[in-house]
Amino acid sequence: MTAEQEMPLGEPADDFTAPDPSALETDPVYREAVIDLLGVLAYGELTAFERTASDAALAPTVGDESALAEMANAEFRHFRHLRDRLIQMGVDPEAAMTPFKTSYAEFHSHTMPSDWLEGLIKAYVGDGIGMDFYREISRYVDASTRELVETVCEDLGHSAFVVDRVRAAIDADPRVAGRLALWGRRLVGEALSQAQRVAAERDALSSLIVGGVDRPGADLAEMGRMLARLTENHTRRMTALGLAA
Amino acid sequence: MTAEQEMPLGEPADDFTAPDPSALETDPVYREAVIDLLGVLAYGELTAFERTASDAALAPTVGDESALAEMANAEFRHFRHLRDRLIQMGVDPEAAMTPFKTSYAEFHSHTMPSDWLEGLIKAYVGDGIGMDFYREISRYVDASTRELVETVCEDLGHSAFVVDRVRAAIDADPRVAGRLALWGRRLVGEALSQAQRVAAERDALSSLIVGGVDRPGADLAEMGRMLARLTENHTRRMTALGLAA
Repeated sequence: MTAEQEMPLGEPADDFTAPDPSALETDPVYREAVIDLLGVLAYGELTAFERTASDAALAPTVGDESALAEMANAEFRHFRHLRDRLIQMGVDPEAAMTPFKTSYAEFHSHTMPSDWLEGLIKAYVGDGIGMDFYREISRYVDASTRELVETVCEDLGHSAFVVDRVRAAIDADPRVAGRLALWGRRLVGEALSQAQRVAAERDALSSLIVGGVDRPGADLAEMGRMLARLTENHTRRMTALGLAA
Repeated sequence: MTAEQEMPLGEPADDFTAPDPSALETDPVYREAVIDLLGVLAYGELTAFERTASDAALAPTVGDESALAEMANAEFRHFRHLRDRLIQMGVDPEAAMTPFKTSYAEFHSHTMPSDWLEGLIKAYVGDGIGMDFYREISRYVDASTRELVETVCEDLGHSAFVVDRVRAAIDADPRVAGRLALWGRRLVGEALSQAQRVAAERDALSSLIVGGVDRPGADLAEMGRMLARLTENHTRRMTALGLAA
């Protein structure tokens, strides 16, 4: 499955107007929310880099190993983009990322791949649902921040590589499909549980979607549609892998 | 300790003349030896990248974590230089690297750091002795290959960062020094044992130093001095860390 086949992003409600980039200077709550968004994304890319590079060591061939290392390297470039934007905004990147350390550490420690295929699926399915979510949020931020978020959420070539390798493995031994489908469900469950934790702890970040004082957000109906889109895209990724969602 | 304080490299014996770069085309045994050298170095950088990126997750702070990730990224750039040279020579990089997969996998599985400090020392002491060894070999190859080897063996900033962090940890709790000194000895023992294995299995690579038909190499006395230099530099690195070698 490629990005072109994915569900289109939803549009915010009719009465929603995206903040002007100047709000980063004039609205302290909005500024705090964007710092949180860039911080959680930057730390996510940093840990994705570490995990992808580490999982490369599980590759069956040196060719696959260097292909995965190349993807890890692209994740590091995304980390740098986000870190540099934080610095440009006058923010200490370490301070912006640190609040999200525990959530990511728990996600990764609960989803340690036991083999090469589980690592590939984690890179595709786990990162996929994360990137979908951040692109949904990007509808609610100023144009400059949105452009950066869209850049770091682009597909890094994981999709085609992972789909090819996982389908070949299932063709070779159809019995692995059951175990890998369970693994996909576990990844989503852990991702949702950490997302809820972050939303509960970081009011500013949540306010980007649900709105704040003087700033409208998504209503309950739109929140429902957003969750439906995330679920639908996840199901499409699992289907592309030849797995039941 | 910085590179400036390290022991100077030895000069090959008086009767030694480095091969001309044209030997890469005209001398199949020399060409095979250089492919082995670039292959072992490339795979070494690839696995160093994977391990450094993975060890970054052990960092006590997000700042140290991103500093180590930055070093991993530099190792990946070195990997790319070597891979690109192999491609330029008309060699499949995967084929050139694969013979060294087992040795590196065994080295890494025998030297899994149990914490942040062990990971740092592995990056500095383990990579340090490896880089010293490759720079010694580089005296025996043509100028074009030598320049590439010297580039990928440069200090990536590991030294200053590691020395600072390890000395601070020993200051804070002097009891860790004993455990870390043992760890340093284990790293060197494992590195030597894998180096012997590679030397035994890859005749072409060994012939770069010991010489081959029509190509003089190091005599026994020079081999002894080379080992003395490697040991001396290792001892200096351990001393810089505040550890007994």
